[in-house]
Amino acid sequence: MKIVILGSGNVAYHLAKAFAEKNIPVAQVFGRNEKDLKEISAQLEIPFSTEKLEDADFYLLAVNDDAVTDLSKKILKTNCLVAHTSGSLPKEALEGHYRKASFYPLQTFSKSKPLNYSEIPFFVEAENLPDLEILENLALKISTNVMKSDFEKRKYIHLTAVFACNFVNHLFARAKEISDAQHIPFEYFLPLIKETTEKIYEVEPKLAQTGPAVRNDERVLVLHEQLIADEEHLKIYKTLNESIKKMYEL
Amino acid sequence: MKIVILGSGNVAYHLAKAFAEKNIPVAQVFGRNEKDLKEISAQLEIPFSTEKLEDADFYLLAVNDDAVTDLSKKILKTNCLVAHTSGSLPKEALEGHYRKASFYPLQTFSKSKPLNYSEIPFFVEAENLPDLEILENLALKISTNVMKSDFEKRKYIHLTAVFACNFVNHLFARAKEISDAQHIPFEYFLPLIKETTEKIYEVEPKLAQTGPAVRNDERVLVLHEQLIADEEHLKIYKTLNESIKKMYEL
Repeated sequence: MKIVILGSGNVAYHLAKAFAEKNIPVAQVFGRNEKDLKEISAQLEIPFSTEKLEDADFYLLAVNDDAVTDLSKKILKTNCLVAHTSGSLPKEALEGHYRKASFYPLQTFSKSKPLNYSEIPFFVEAENLPDLEILENLALKISTNVMKSDFEKRKYIHLTAVFACNFVNHLFARAKEISDAQHIPFEYFLPLIKETTEKIYEVEPKLAQTGPAVRNDERVLVLHEQLIADEEHLKIYKTLNESIKKMYEL
Repeated sequence: MKIVILGSGNVAYHLAKAFAEKNIPVAQVFGRNEKDLKEISAQLEIPFSTEKLEDADFYLLAVNDDAVTDLSKKILKTNCLVAHTSGSLPKEALEGHYRKASFYPLQTFSKSKPLNYSEIPFFVEAENLPDLEILENLALKISTNVMKSDFEKRKYIHLTAVFACNFVNHLFARAKEISDAQHIPFEYFLPLIKETTEKIYEVEPKLAQTGPAVRNDERVLVLHEQLIADEEHLKIYKTLNESIKKMYEL
């Protein structure tokens, strides 16, 4: 199967790298950003183009949601399989006369940070069983964790990931603002953060909750509200404490 | 130095265990909960009592904030050092005619989960330099990470920890509600959570932000708001997305 990856961002880079590590040939990386394409091409020894899309059996669009439809129209071939990597788009967001699919890796990708691809859950969807099997087999070469998932399920997976990943990172960023303002090195909090997330491998998060809200410790909650100088911090503080109290019926 | 630990909860247990692992003798664990005291006593070979407080040079109160003052009154000895382990109480919350101090470990403790104590930051405070040195030396036997910190600083450390630990765990609990409702195993999200928190060892969280809000992807934000069935989930979703947009001036 001849594979072309469209895109040159973090997802495109890591998927190309994951294929390369398993000796799955990629015939081309295609996109608009020549600088990024060149880097991927040089590092992974894959031809690139910004202009002429190579003929292939499988086109994988690893681009931002809002670029998927326009880019998908560039694939004029009909006897091929085309998948996007989005958690929040149906496969019908692909516009062309080919077989449509989705190939969604549940992970947060940064170019600079190496990843263990074998742990990444892949969610695949296709129009028919043979295509589904192609995608499952391809994902299974990279990862041990491959599941079938239609858009109805995939969009909830993405929503859950926003809470468990994007919002969590934002809390780290807001926490760092508080410690920075007091000249407290954020490094002090890394062992605590590590333990907080390692704990959920063993204990259900609802049972692992600690802190003033779950103890209904009004004295500390009032003290903290007095300490908080930033309006956004205060909104987050109140919203999450209220949510904790509701969860534990306090 | 003769040490007595007051309390039988998670913090008391782990501090007693940390001392035991470094062959620092603890003369007694003292508290109200005989069952928990018996367990600590049996596992760590430390005498316990629910009635008669042993004579000691250093009393360490590892109990909930709201129990500190009452318990501290039970120490009638004057020629001794007494510390609590709270992030949100001044050392003056201790009521007695002894030398007062604070010995604050920045970590989340669960009884069932073993911890690497050497990584835990300890924040110590005392009335005078000799007592401060006693506490620093004691903490340095357990941890490589010991800092002086008065209450003014300590309360901000605790506030930061609420954002970086307590709130993060609550987001995991709320995320799990969303995935549970769709029969999506929460285990799928563990590699993503692991990567999210490992990333902050290398990249500042503000620079590592991903997700629909930081991309200002209104289509996905609206889609997600339509998917969310629970009022508390929606409040969290809106509050944190607004906060992300404000941080990046979107």
